[in-house]
Amino acid sequence: MKQAVVARTDLKMGKGKICSQIAHASVESFLLTRQRRQEWAEIWLAEGQKKIILKVESEQALKDLYNEVRHEIPAVLVVDAGYTQIHPGTTTCLGIGPAPETVIDKYISHYKLL
Amino acid sequence: MKQAVVARTDLKMGKGKICSQIAHASVESFLLTRQRRQEWAEIWLAEGQKKIILKVESEQALKDLYNEVRHEIPAVLVVDAGYTQIHPGTTTCLGIGPAPETVIDKYISHYKLL
Repeated sequence: MKQAVVARTDLKMGKGKICSQIAHASVESFLLTRQRRQEWAEIWLAEGQKKIILKVESEQALKDLYNEVRHEIPAVLVVDAGYTQIHPGTTTCLGIGPAPETVIDKYISHYKLL
Repeated sequence: MKQAVVARTDLKMGKGKICSQIAHASVESFLLTRQRRQEWAEIWLAEGQKKIILKVESEQALKDLYNEVRHEIPAVLVVDAGYTQIHPGTTTCLGIGPAPETVIDKYISHYKLL
């Protein structure tokens, strides 16, 4: 099992900001997966929470991937409240799964590591 | 309610690596908090997962903070399996809470943002 988090790099967020958005996506996507595919979430925790952090360079790329993946894997777009650094309502990153690696890799294998 | 994640900066982890360790700490600390102080975890989720990402410059500083805080707030040290970038068994970061802000701020107010 593996979870993927995909972050936008075009927003020029600071390191702490981007890490907090990624952590947010990780928690939300885990909770949604536990609701919809409980066994995926439980096995992922038991195996030690394997995660991969990827990047895209636009909001459109993030939303396209979300629309592609969400029919097969629980996924969550994170929209920032925007109190600091960025505008309110900005979509910053995407959490996917956890899901079996063979399922998730079909969607993410051509994205680059953050 | 607020969760804090404290990361070591002396390990020279890449951005993706440090973000994945922080996400790991966030999920683990949330799950432990939900076990021990369910109302703190539930309120934190409902309020939108407020998080603060802080830094320390040594393993000792991370462990000292852990030993200080864990008597009052659920907290988790993350030990990396070390497949990439760092040695196996390296303590990379610390997740604290979520907990009420007045409780958590006593411990973390003098740490700097990542």
